[in-house]
Amino acid sequence: MLNSELERFIQEDLGPYDLSCTLVPEREVEAFILAKEYCTLAGIDVAMSIFKYFGLQAVPSHSDGDQVQAGNTIISLRGSSVSILRAERLSLNFLGHLSGIATMTSKCVQIVRSFSDTRVACTRKTIPGMRSLEKMAVVAGGGDTHRFSLSDCIMLKDNHITLMGFEAAISEAKKRASFTQKIEVEVESMEEALLVARMGVDIIMLDNMSPTEVLRTVQKIKKEGLKEHVIIEVSGNITIENLEEYAKTGVDVISMGSLIHAARWIDLSMEFSA
Amino acid sequence: MLNSELERFIQEDLGPYDLSCTLVPEREVEAFILAKEYCTLAGIDVAMSIFKYFGLQAVPSHSDGDQVQAGNTIISLRGSSVSILRAERLSLNFLGHLSGIATMTSKCVQIVRSFSDTRVACTRKTIPGMRSLEKMAVVAGGGDTHRFSLSDCIMLKDNHITLMGFEAAISEAKKRASFTQKIEVEVESMEEALLVARMGVDIIMLDNMSPTEVLRTVQKIKKEGLKEHVIIEVSGNITIENLEEYAKTGVDVISMGSLIHAARWIDLSMEFSA
Amino acid sequence: MLNSELERFIQEDLGPYDLSCTLVPEREVEAFILAKEYCTLAGIDVAMSIFKYFGLQAVPSHSDGDQVQAGNTIISLRGSSVSILRAERLSLNFLGHLSGIATMTSKCVQIVRSFSDTRVACTRKTIPGMRSLEKMAVVAGGGDTHRFSLSDCIMLKDNHITLMGFEAAISEAKKRASFTQKIEVEVESMEEALLVARMGVDIIMLDNMSPTEVLRTVQKIKKEGLKEHVIIEVSGNITIENLEEYAKTGVDVISMGSLIHAARWIDLSMEFSA
Amino acid sequence: MLNSELERFIQEDLGPYDLSCTLVPEREVEAFILAKEYCTLAGIDVAMSIFKYFGLQAVPSHSDGDQVQAGNTIISLRGSSVSILRAERLSLNFLGHLSGIATMTSKCVQIVRSFSDTRVACTRKTIPGMRSLEKMAVVAGGGDTHRFSLSDCIMLKDNHITLMGFEAAISEAKKRASFTQKIEVEVESMEEALLVARMGVDIIMLDNMSPTEVLRTVQKIKKEGLKEHVIIEVSGNITIENLEEYAKTGVDVISMGSLIHAARWIDLSMEFSA
Amino acid sequence: MLNSELERFIQEDLGPYDLSCTLVPEREVEAFILAKEYCTLAGIDVAMSIFKYFGLQAVPSHSDGDQVQAGNTIISLRGSSVSILRAERLSLNFLGHLSGIATMTSKCVQIVRSFSDTRVACTRKTIPGMRSLEKMAVVAGGGDTHRFSLSDCIMLKDNHITLMGFEAAISEAKKRASFTQKIEVEVESMEEALLVARMGVDIIMLDNMSPTEVLRTVQKIKKEGLKEHVIIEVSGNITIENLEEYAKTGVDVISMGSLIHAARWIDLSMEFSA
Amino acid sequence: MLNSELERFIQEDLGPYDLSCTLVPEREVEAFILAKEYCTLAGIDVAMSIFKYFGLQAVPSHSDGDQVQAGNTIISLRGSSVSILRAERLSLNFLGHLSGIATMTSKCVQIVRSFSDTRVACTRKTIPGMRSLEKMAVVAGGGDTHRFSLSDCIMLKDNHITLMGFEAAISEAKKRASFTQKIEVEVESMEEALLVARMGVDIIMLDNMSPTEVLRTVQKIKKEGLKEHVIIEVSGNITIENLEEYAKTGVDVISMGSLIHAARWIDLSMEFSA
Repeated sequence: MLNSELERFIQEDLGPYDLSCTLVPEREVEAFILAKEYCTLAGIDVAMSIFKYFGLQAVPSHSDGDQVQAGNTIISLRGSSVSILRAERLSLNFLGHLSGIATMTSKCVQIVRSFSDTRVACTRKTIPGMRSLEKMAVVAGGGDTHRFSLSDCIMLKDNHITLMGFEAAISEAKKRASFTQKIEVEVESMEEALLVARMGVDIIMLDNMSPTEVLRTVQKIKKEGLKEHVIIEVSGNITIENLEEYAKTGVDVISMGSLIHAARWIDLSMEFSA
Repeated sequence: MLNSELERFIQEDLGPYDLSCTLVPEREVEAFILAKEYCTLAGIDVAMSIFKYFGLQAVPSHSDGDQVQAGNTIISLRGSSVSILRAERLSLNFLGHLSGIATMTSKCVQIVRSFSDTRVACTRKTIPGMRSLEKMAVVAGGGDTHRFSLSDCIMLKDNHITLMGFEAAISEAKKRASFTQKIEVEVESMEEALLVARMGVDIIMLDNMSPTEVLRTVQKIKKEGLKEHVIIEVSGNITIENLEEYAKTGVDVISMGSLIHAARWIDLSMEFSA
Repeated sequence: MLNSELERFIQEDLGPYDLSCTLVPEREVEAFILAKEYCTLAGIDVAMSIFKYFGLQAVPSHSDGDQVQAGNTIISLRGSSVSILRAERLSLNFLGHLSGIATMTSKCVQIVRSFSDTRVACTRKTIPGMRSLEKMAVVAGGGDTHRFSLSDCIMLKDNHITLMGFEAAISEAKKRASFTQKIEVEVESMEEALLVARMGVDIIMLDNMSPTEVLRTVQKIKKEGLKEHVIIEVSGNITIENLEEYAKTGVDVISMGSLIHAARWIDLSMEFSA
Repeated sequence: MLNSELERFIQEDLGPYDLSCTLVPEREVEAFILAKEYCTLAGIDVAMSIFKYFGLQAVPSHSDGDQVQAGNTIISLRGSSVSILRAERLSLNFLGHLSGIATMTSKCVQIVRSFSDTRVACTRKTIPGMRSLEKMAVVAGGGDTHRFSLSDCIMLKDNHITLMGFEAAISEAKKRASFTQKIEVEVESMEEALLVARMGVDIIMLDNMSPTEVLRTVQKIKKEGLKEHVIIEVSGNITIENLEEYAKTGVDVISMGSLIHAARWIDLSMEFSA
Repeated sequence: MLNSELERFIQEDLGPYDLSCTLVPEREVEAFILAKEYCTLAGIDVAMSIFKYFGLQAVPSHSDGDQVQAGNTIISLRGSSVSILRAERLSLNFLGHLSGIATMTSKCVQIVRSFSDTRVACTRKTIPGMRSLEKMAVVAGGGDTHRFSLSDCIMLKDNHITLMGFEAAISEAKKRASFTQKIEVEVESMEEALLVARMGVDIIMLDNMSPTEVLRTVQKIKKEGLKEHVIIEVSGNITIENLEEYAKTGVDVISMGSLIHAARWIDLSMEFSA
Repeated sequence: MLNSELERFIQEDLGPYDLSCTLVPEREVEAFILAKEYCTLAGIDVAMSIFKYFGLQAVPSHSDGDQVQAGNTIISLRGSSVSILRAERLSLNFLGHLSGIATMTSKCVQIVRSFSDTRVACTRKTIPGMRSLEKMAVVAGGGDTHRFSLSDCIMLKDNHITLMGFEAAISEAKKRASFTQKIEVEVESMEEALLVARMGVDIIMLDNMSPTEVLRTVQKIKKEGLKEHVIIEVSGNITIENLEEYAKTGVDVISMGSLIHAARWIDLSMEFSA
């Protein structure tokens, strides 16, 4: 994390004059960060950069993506008592939030892996300011980042199509996109999917379609010999509950905003050594 | 929101060159933000400042704290098609995340209100960079912000006590705290609670105690005539499931990290007018 | 101090191309910062962070709050001649300004201590951008920080009362303040003081009242048995000249903007070792 | 003032959640900023940019450099009650601090003007982050800004000379300075002054010399026919008390850190209209 | 352009106290920006945002990508004389630099168009801080942006291959890249090109190969039936002088750092109306 | 370079998630930066600060201003493979661009030195955000920085004169400029040059005059005995092609925007050790 970014987060948590921390005697202590429940870890690097900023020696026992049990030590710390108190909440907030996303993603990936090697991806539904870190947590959980910003690949969504229609939108996109970018189009029916597949886009996103419709669409695209050149993504209100049905449809990618927006934090704590 | 902060969020979502948005013809359009499920709203002001930044006319139908039904329009928009596409995801991310917190808070407050006027508060378990906004969402849901940073009120937690003991910590805090600040102490048993109540702190936080222990402690403090001068807060793994039991103990404040860290986003969408 | 903040100050003093400093031969030198008059020190930590930024070894002979005589060495430096010249003015500006505030505060606290243990506090009359540091300098001089920002404790001032009246303002504040915050109300007469004391606020601020009026008000509040629950602060054009009279009134806190806005800088200089 | 700078100052004064201001009913009000003592104004533009930021209509009755009497209105305001409360302290802090500097400068300039047209200049002894504004306040009071940063003109001070000697330092400066820059050298005796005058520098600064020595030095330089090409500045512990003596010596410039570091704030207040 | 970014550039050009601009009488004037040589324009939007920041009315006669003759007016301005002087250099610096890139690109695209519809792209050889704007200038000239940052598409360059070999690098890239990203590999011979084409990458970049080698490689890839799935880019010291030879090889993309790093500025000036 | 500035440039080049760099195995490697053509170096310090930021050991073989041959090693690197890949493009972009300017400047200075010791200076025609560095590159090539911003010295240009006339502009400038600043005036004819020389300005800039006119003007100013007090600068479309003619006129300074805006980058590369 950039130092200037880190300092903004530190300032938010410490405020103008953090008297509480300075009440304790300044002496060298040891502390540990513990998982209080089973989880897939993410945010270790961020936590390490926080500890480094505060001049603490920190040794991680695990890396992003590792699965740990309740009671496992994640990071061991040594250094100034005041600095450890200052670093505590911020590091735990990152670890708890990001490991929550990694754990959610990991669960979803495991469900899908029973049936296929379909990728599980997140979306741009991320907390403002946290996108890179949240997407790296998705990677830690075995997921795909999808695009990081509107600039990443060209994605023509429902509102673009409403304003332009498929033909104009795709033709304009092909003309203006860089050769380094893929073009993805969102469709809402099998007919639209076939239409845009024939127009030669790189990715088709089937939006808000039922598993049955998705299955029919995938089969139809294969039958028409169009599958080789196109990646099929499915999206729209897919949750951990209905994921299995979509996993069986043979799509290439399932994207779920809920990897991030329905993930709850993992419970972690920092304990001082006796 | 400060403009410089807003621009960081916009830059994150748009990236260096958001070709997608510029593909559509630049013309005046109308759009609406709709709730797709029942919720308590938060983040309206943030969304309004995003729309203002992009030069859009925006009229909110509701304010933070309002409860809306699935299908209700929240904000009506008019302006440049390109600008609306650029503002869409960022505004929805704020509204979805913050309304999720307000909705969670509102549910918890309703549970508590059946039994008492105990306050429901959040904690410092917030997403880095989002603290002010998340705490305002808690207020929108009827909750209490608790402190915003380590500088707000003096809070002596387990790790302070481990390093100093109660007497030294409280005496030092009284000497050094500003007269404008309250002093809060975290305790883990009835005995500790009585000890610190006698020492004259402003707030006692009963940490990780069972509802029965909490009830006994509150009664004991009352019996000793110490209740008048002290606010009793209870905290530690209180969730919407076990909240009722704590609400019945007569404490003044129940604080729950889960108002924020277990809230899932509210589903909202932006639709263009036909 | 945050690095990003420090760099802004460095950039201000160095400008785009500080040729003067680079004229001197780059070699290791020793230098000392000396007090040129009696003072109470503040800003040592800030100076140390500046020297660290420039890669200099710096050893402080004193801490914030120490009283030093003219001629005393405050910090000893060793390192690059160019870097010392670059760090000189910025570190002296902080030390001179902040020690001026600490010295002024210390004098006022000494005056008050002859009569009582009344606290001497500063206000929000601070140089924009310097508030935290200036308030820490007040602490170094033995004073109280008062609140750091409008968010710290609820303070109902004359302009709030003009717009709402006491009853509405206090009732609204009690309803909306966090349980972690105190509520303070500014009054302009004994009658108002009694009114708000009865309404159960945490702090009453007697504004612009004469020592005699203050004394009468304090006695009346005590007589009515209201003193135990309320802190009495006095404010408004209290200067080092008239401080003694207020110190004798028995108020809990005397707040003085002049701790900061009438403090002149302490004279310090940096000398190279022969 | 840059918006990004202004927002930092606003954030400092408002904090994360300024509940106090939002307690008052949001309605259109009028208010006035009044001088409570005689002063020379500075900071009007800064105050105006604060009011503009908060969406307030503000009409200044005066400009920087104007002299106003106690009771004079400086700026009239109209707009949201909440916004006026938010803008109050920050605008008064700028106006009070900067007008203090302008007033101090104006007094010093008047003292000097009885004897000569010698310029009165400030130095680099300024509050970190405030240099431009403080120097503009000096201009408002009739003073000279001197250099804004180390990059402005080449200034060889005692520490440079200690490290290099006059000859090497001046020769190096002439070789490396841009043709757009003047070269100034600090000297501590008449002999040194003559030495560097002969070497052809643009400005000689007589440091810490008594009025008698200064007078002798000026006369000697004139006698040697060197005065035409050189500006003579005097500096070092010159205060409003001993200024007159230096004003009579015939130097071109008197520079005084005390224009800024010994200036106390002007008392101003904001009042709501009845 | 983000306001916070724009303010940094303004601060760089104005410095702490731009007295020159304030010497002129503040009155409404008209001015024009003129091309002093034939060019393809870029940077109009940036210039417009500068003029808007300074409160000037500005009407552009042209858009990015337009070709104008010496003497043509590009933007007409009306507003404060002081503001126009402040906006002059910064707006001209952007327009001159960016139009230089657009003009260079346009020339190269015209050379290529005589032979094929091969794209002309720039690279990551851009001035730090200017990448987005310089790449948009390339678009204005008819070129392709190539990737904006290391995050855009996966590009395995010589140094990656040195460290990993083709097989490991490509296999790892396929496993870890998002499905939204293309994978590009740099090769230095026909053999390497065929190797990676068979491994199924999206883009092959022929680095530092002669036109003859490029031609042979393109033909070989076609002959092997691999061309349909792969984009062939050529790069490495291609300049406007040797561009024609590469244009004839049938590659899909020619990328040239020199679009940016060898472009000289276009001569433009701002004139006040009589 | 300030860290906060450096981080902006790094963020621009790395983007939100630089997967490419992380594909390579993380191990210690050695690399070299090589000149691929003859040049005068600039930007070594900037490159060093980038390598330091990434935790790399870097040893420069040369300093700014050194002239190196094609094939010469400039900096040797040792450290993490991933970090070297991340630092590569940014450091090369600075070195290539800045050395291009130093090389161009050096060539111009050599041309001039055949005839005189006239200084060669750059102007304010610099890439926004790069001014300090580009001007230091000019210094590395033996040139003069001219002023860094509008605040540096007072410069009355054509547009000032159009608005005020010479007399008013110069008189106002003399009154308001700091004694530390020089005053420069732009003129367009010998008559104007004589006029302003007589008014006692520090620098006269002959704008857009032919070598013959310049020569005549210089001689006339000398003849009138005005030369001793004034520096004569010539500017306006002076290029490396016509520089010789101006060098022979006896002016003190020749300023050329083209030192920067017509300089092409130097070709450099980073190679890993076998």
